Amino acid sequence: MHLYLAGPDVFLPNPLEMARLKQEICRNYGFVGEFPFDSNLDLASLSPYDQGMAIYQSNIVLMNRCDLIVANMTPFRGPSMDVGTAFEMGYMAAQGKPVYGYTHDGRLYVDRVTAASPGLDADGLSIEAFDMVDNLMLEGAIVLSGGVLTRESVAASLFDTSLQAFEATVKLAAERLLGQ
Amino acid sequence: MHLYLAGPDVFLPNPLEMARLKQEICRNYGFVGEFPFDSNLDLASLSPYDQGMAIYQSNIVLMNRCDLIVANMTPFRGPSMDVGTAFEMGYMAAQGKPVYGYTHDGRLYVDRVTAASPGLDADGLSIEAFDMVDNLMLEGAIVLSGGVLTRESVAASLFDTSLQAFEATVKLAAERLLGQ
Repeated sequence: MHLYLAGPDVFLPNPLEMARLKQEICRNYGFVGEFPFDSNLDLASLSPYDQGMAIYQSNIVLMNRCDLIVANMTPFRGPSMDVGTAFEMGYMAAQGKPVYGYTHDGRLYVDRVTAASPGLDADGLSIEAFDMVDNLMLEGAIVLSGGVLTRESVAASLFDTSLQAFEATVKLAAERLLGQ
Repeated sequence: MHLYLAGPDVFLPNPLEMARLKQEICRNYGFVGEFPFDSNLDLASLSPYDQGMAIYQSNIVLMNRCDLIVANMTPFRGPSMDVGTAFEMGYMAAQGKPVYGYTHDGRLYVDRVTAASPGLDADGLSIEAFDMVDNLMLEGAIVLSGGVLTRESVAASLFDTSLQAFEATVKLAAERLLGQ
């Protein structure tokens, strides 16, 4: 089975090193890990906008080839996860594929958003409080697709690079999907 | 055609008033607007977590019934859009349905994220710079599904409630999909 490696890991200083480490863990548990990085694309001659479009198409082709997704749902530049990864969870859920995820911030969403008054943020918008780590569409997709969400609070210095929660998630996916 | 109204509008103090206004605009252009609000669900007897799951399932049923999506991509609690809405754009894109969107912050993503050094944020993660308003998966889905992204910078006081960009987007969708 091919496993789509979704997450803001692509923005790390050395994404290909992270890809290698994640793919090795996948292999150890019987999966082929697919990392959405544009290393095979010839982007040099394209404008930035057309580069973005080419990467989008490449990621879509990769998702269509994959059997499940494991998403890094660690908060990214705010209280919520990376929006590109959220899009990919929706894309895979619509195809009926199992959605797995993990986060390095084990707190509930309501405990991460600063409340200005009870249940409301500074703009007066209500703060979701469904005992979930992020927006309900994400955790809903995981649970109802038969997946698992691993919550693990990680030291700040390891927030972007820890692989412990990722490995725990891949292990559970292997048990459920490969009978290991 | 049924149009799925996606966005953080559900977190407004009076979401049903926003639903009514958006549905009226949809009707004026020939669409049936579907607003994902849990008003028809009997949630009172459920735990917060089970409420979240029930709303997820209800939103999925609604998306499956809809023919296109118009997403409010205005930044939400950070430089990016609401993750639940991003999930829904991915879900509809995977079904081959047209994805439309609008944002009340017309700036490019790279101009919204604070750079600590050229091209990098404070954590050393690279900042996407594809001349797009947000993560490339979102604008990619819009353009390659035949949709349109409306960018309009709106005064802060109208950031959460303006309907001008929404109406412009619905008008374009009607021209493309209903031949109006």
